[in-house]
Amino acid sequence: MSAEKQLSALVLIADGSEEIETVTPLDVLVRAGFAAVTSVGVGLKNPLYAQCSRGIKIIPDIPSPHEIPDRLVDAADILILPGGAPGAKTFCQSEEVLRLIREFRNEGKWVAAICAGTTALVESVKSPRADGEAAKKCKVTSHPSVKQEIVDAGWTYADDSERVVVDGKIITSRGPGTALLFSLTIVEQLAGKAKKDEVHGPMICAGTL
Amino acid sequence: MSAEKQLSALVLIADGSEEIETVTPLDVLVRAGFAAVTSVGVGLKNPLYAQCSRGIKIIPDIPSPHEIPDRLVDAADILILPGGAPGAKTFCQSEEVLRLIREFRNEGKWVAAICAGTTALVESVKSPRADGEAAKKCKVTSHPSVKQEIVDAGWTYADDSERVVVDGKIITSRGPGTALLFSLTIVEQLAGKAKKDEVHGPMICAGTL
Ligand SMILES: [Cu+]
Repeated sequence: MSAEKQLSALVLIADGSEEIETVTPLDVLVRAGFAAVTSVGVGLKNPLYAQCSRGIKIIPDIPSPHEIPDRLVDAADILILPGGAPGAKTFCQSEEVLRLIREFRNEGKWVAAICAGTTALVESVKSPRADGEAAKKCKVTSHPSVKQEIVDAGWTYADDSERVVVDGKIITSRGPGTALLFSLTIVEQLAGKAKKDEVHGPMICAGTL
Repeated sequence: MSAEKQLSALVLIADGSEEIETVTPLDVLVRAGFAAVTSVGVGLKNPLYAQCSRGIKIIPDIPSPHEIPDRLVDAADILILPGGAPGAKTFCQSEEVLRLIREFRNEGKWVAAICAGTTALVESVKSPRADGEAAKKCKVTSHPSVKQEIVDAGWTYADDSERVVVDGKIITSRGPGTALLFSLTIVEQLAGKAKKDEVHGPMICAGTL
């Protein structure tokens, strides 16, 4: 067998992003051996750090989407959108974020959103600029607090008992309490079940996430 | 009924602290309405931030234990020690951290440690300065990777199936996959089951953590 593909991810982070939902995928994807896991600030009031939803200050690797080197975007296999209502609202209002989501989808790459993060995915389809794959509504989940707006926008909403949903190359999930399942599902989908199991063990995860 | 007690917590963070284990209690305790949840850097190479175990940079509220105002220490009900092997090693080597652990225990306050964080609790008892409550070994758990050294130091080690252990005012847990259970157990012990249930719901936690 040849060398494994070097996987790479971009994780967006705004003021008001939910810290568990932001940190968990970053942590788990590094554990899974992703070659690059890059956090990117969006609309930060202080360009040095994101002030997350419960006050934790996280310094992103790159302060804004405008400053992501093209090679990082090109190399990235997945774009990850954490929740936290204020952070997700910032994503929805960022043309650069909506453009990134459409670009990833149209290039056949993965997009993953958790909690209120799903609303940015929904927003990205509303624009008249959305075409091809990037215009498709699929089956998703989200935090219950934003379910209605997602349903109203015409998306298929998974049963509330589904804690993570994979539809094509869209992975969505529900809240901080599903962040580990969300992150391990990303690992399983992109790197395979063996890699997921390898990461799962030392983290001492519960049997059912 | 009179006003609820205003709860307050200190969470230590070093370079190499595990990010999920650090962020989860901070997040959950704020959700539970703790009046102050303060992160305190320990031995940081760059005084601005802790570079966590998987590369995430977190800015602590206070850069070092020497700079914690006395009133914050006095007000704090619980001291929390996240894991991550390199971070926990820094805690073990910090006289200030070991002194804080002993002080909290001797004042009848709570100490909580997760993963390799339990080793700092163990270390705090080794010193000849440990007396009274602070000299007592109790029943704990930890990440499996540091179990043997804890057992060798003469502590009672819980069955591996116990994902969180409460013994007196010591709460211990096992790894990133138990961080949510650990944090919710802190809420339950200090603020009661009703508060825990109130926080649990909107986070969309699994039925069994
Ligand atoms: Cu959220």
